[in-house]
Amino acid sequence: MGESSPIKKYDLIVLGSGPAGEKGAAQAAYFGKRVAMVEKDYYLGGAAAGTAIPNKTLRETSLALSAIRSRHLYGVDLSLKRRTTVQDFLHHERIVKDAERKRVKNNMMLHKVDIYKGIGSFVDKQTIKVEIRGKKPEFLRSDTILIATGSKPRRPDNLPKDLRIYDSDSILQIKRLPKNMVVVGGGVIGLEYACTFSVLGVDVSLVHNRDILLPFLDRDISFALENNISKMGINLYKSESVESCNVKTNRLELKLGSGAIISCEAIMLATGRTSNTEELNLEAAEITPGKYGRLVVNENYQVIHPKTKKPVSGIYASGDVIGPPALASTSMEQARFAMIKAFNLEPYKEHVAPILPLGIYTIPECSMVGKTEEECQEENIDYVVGKASYNQNARGMIIGDNDGFLKLIFEFNNDLSQPMKLLGVHVIGEIASELIHFGVSALIMNAGSDLFINTCFNYPTLGELYKYATYEAMGKRAKRIKLE
Amino acid sequence: MGESSPIKKYDLIVLGSGPAGEKGAAQAAYFGKRVAMVEKDYYLGGAAAGTAIPNKTLRETSLALSAIRSRHLYGVDLSLKRRTTVQDFLHHERIVKDAERKRVKNNMMLHKVDIYKGIGSFVDKQTIKVEIRGKKPEFLRSDTILIATGSKPRRPDNLPKDLRIYDSDSILQIKRLPKNMVVVGGGVIGLEYACTFSVLGVDVSLVHNRDILLPFLDRDISFALENNISKMGINLYKSESVESCNVKTNRLELKLGSGAIISCEAIMLATGRTSNTEELNLEAAEITPGKYGRLVVNENYQVIHPKTKKPVSGIYASGDVIGPPALASTSMEQARFAMIKAFNLEPYKEHVAPILPLGIYTIPECSMVGKTEEECQEENIDYVVGKASYNQNARGMIIGDNDGFLKLIFEFNNDLSQPMKLLGVHVIGEIASELIHFGVSALIMNAGSDLFINTCFNYPTLGELYKYATYEAMGKRAKRIKLE
Repeated sequence: MGESSPIKKYDLIVLGSGPAGEKGAAQAAYFGKRVAMVEKDYYLGGAAAGTAIPNKTLRETSLALSAIRSRHLYGVDLSLKRRTTVQDFLHHERIVKDAERKRVKNNMMLHKVDIYKGIGSFVDKQTIKVEIRGKKPEFLRSDTILIATGSKPRRPDNLPKDLRIYDSDSILQIKRLPKNMVVVGGGVIGLEYACTFSVLGVDVSLVHNRDILLPFLDRDISFALENNISKMGINLYKSESVESCNVKTNRLELKLGSGAIISCEAIMLATGRTSNTEELNLEAAEITPGKYGRLVVNENYQVIHPKTKKPVSGIYASGDVIGPPALASTSMEQARFAMIKAFNLEPYKEHVAPILPLGIYTIPECSMVGKTEEECQEENIDYVVGKASYNQNARGMIIGDNDGFLKLIFEFNNDLSQPMKLLGVHVIGEIASELIHFGVSALIMNAGSDLFINTCFNYPTLGELYKYATYEAMGKRAKRIKLE
Repeated sequence: MGESSPIKKYDLIVLGSGPAGEKGAAQAAYFGKRVAMVEKDYYLGGAAAGTAIPNKTLRETSLALSAIRSRHLYGVDLSLKRRTTVQDFLHHERIVKDAERKRVKNNMMLHKVDIYKGIGSFVDKQTIKVEIRGKKPEFLRSDTILIATGSKPRRPDNLPKDLRIYDSDSILQIKRLPKNMVVVGGGVIGLEYACTFSVLGVDVSLVHNRDILLPFLDRDISFALENNISKMGINLYKSESVESCNVKTNRLELKLGSGAIISCEAIMLATGRTSNTEELNLEAAEITPGKYGRLVVNENYQVIHPKTKKPVSGIYASGDVIGPPALASTSMEQARFAMIKAFNLEPYKEHVAPILPLGIYTIPECSMVGKTEEECQEENIDYVVGKASYNQNARGMIIGDNDGFLKLIFEFNNDLSQPMKLLGVHVIGEIASELIHFGVSALIMNAGSDLFINTCFNYPTLGELYKYATYEAMGKRAKRIKLE
């Protein structure tokens, strides 16, 4: 290290500037810590700004189009120009992406976080080397390091390289909407893109290696999602694998495990992600990553050895780099929580783990928080379910969402004068990911059925569904008590 | 009463089948009461189904159009056909309206409520006569009566009758979109229609007799709404009155108090509503209505004499018939609460009055719950405000809402280790009326700033605004404590 600049000392070094990196850095800086952030890309913001926002913007476009249709707005001429390209749709996206990157930068400046643009790697447990092309490396030292370097798409080995075979990053560069496409992988990313492209008029096939979609969802929601995507015309190949791909001049031929062959203009691979840990020189910090390069962490998001479970002193990780759920929302909370633990900042943030909602931006949206019906059964919890349909709700009818519903799961108790404890909330339908927040707060505050009965909801709103689902659950309880 | 059918006895008679009537009847029936409902219209559902749903459906149409614009969806051909009529837009509305009326009917059948179609009026405090055209009247008797007969538009005396002068009921029958129109009255209804027609491409002028819009809103929201509607091109005449209207063959000339003259193709009057009480023969029940025929009630929604404040035994009223806020949401809660009180059904519903949100379906939407900043000042409450803008939020940026914001008001406390108590929530922007519900539950559960910090919000959602507004408020508190 002789000829390099002197080692700079910080209270915290954050590797990566995505949602986890940004919020972790801001949290520590807010409490007076001196923070350095290392980002290898030219822009701050990571995958959230780089690909999630374009993806959601594209989805919003398709949603606006589908809204026009579902609302049966006669008198409105609406047509997609034949020569429409994805880039046309993404005009607005560039503005949004730039704004989000600027916002992250401003937030870091506001918190007086020093930014180092370059590839960061461990020299030892407390030292990070930042390599900037054409410059002398910089060395940073800190007792606390947060790894938030994210993940990248993983491509299966058995598929050839071809410009018409995209992953979830490169798909956003697609020049024109293909007539048809195959999405390989029925996880969150695969499903989200399959829905968006289907609504944009592409004939989509989805190849999924399991027999149910998103098995972590409540079965009712998973089945409803499957019905919906079939109804919108997506060809679903379940319990299927991809054998090989035959590249022709004018088309791609995908051969499945069952022998079926799908001919298509484009393929999108959504076959999992690999954590960005290979450039970190983890051995220098005595860290061993797990499967797919994932860092293994304990309940405080401190990095541990995957086998011995022994924590590595002072080193934390959060976001995509530690694997599922790999959502921006959970990544941010993990990082904030990790910093609270690292710097002993309690009681400013009491918990993160127990009550994390999941938002799935399929069309329709799905969202959940708390326990599923299947989890209640496994844990032998006696429960009551109440449901309310969008098509029985004034606002649901107005927006023409005929398939959406909200499902509440309460713990059964046979004292009619007592409310029932809320266990889980599950929604499929328009703005599901926003509607769920009412349930998140109810779970955080340990609320019961009385909360939804006592709440006055605006009319017409989808929020009212909480009340009617609760009424159904209360009616079921009353009936059951009568029978017992 | 000699030649009429025998008097039928009930535990409850409900006059009117709108939101208040329906929910009051269902609540009592749910607890085993025998309920009769009297409705003079052919359909059940009242104004909510008859005019609110068409109004909101028309608004949804205009919203879908404005979404296409605000999302800058290039590549999409979107144009309104020149000959578009309001009826074109309302095609979908008829389906929704019918479904809502059917839903009310089914709900009443499910609860075994007897329906009497005819005009109900008091014979004495316990007896209602139902007159059905061409039939012998029926007589109903009950110790408890809920009046939920709603209201109708009130027209000012100084304007002539002309087919081009609409009220909020008849406007939905308008044949084609006029080039320009004047909305008289800057209350909720006037503003909602002014926004809808403006987005549909009509050149709208709004005549308002006060200097601020919706003075019950937090001033920040009221001013933001005023800015928004000016920006969308609505000509706002504040502190103005309507003097007279000159009816010409090809146009209407409206003369204002200031002397200004507005020439237009159509006028919509939104100059307040009169309660539907004149056919009730209220004297027979010794009830005197107040101004505009409004029934005066106490905190339990029991009818009282407007001067002596003496309650009328067994007679309750809720919904539009008792005057502001006259929203479907509050009407339902009032009726449920009245029935709980009338039949002593506590503790099934603890309160209704303290925490009622208001949803204003302007474009953009406004919604509020709890105290405004002005109320805090009047009550000498020491408070801290935190705001978060839609254009700093990923989802807000994606949907292109540049003007929306969420404002939280907390009670100041100088112990940094303690959360601050939430006092009020104010939102202007897309889905404001849905977003507010998180704040409603927080107020009901007496939550503090820690709730929003502990909540994990989906990304990207507008719900996140709660967290960032809270951060701002906490930062302001910390700064203030440092200075003190």
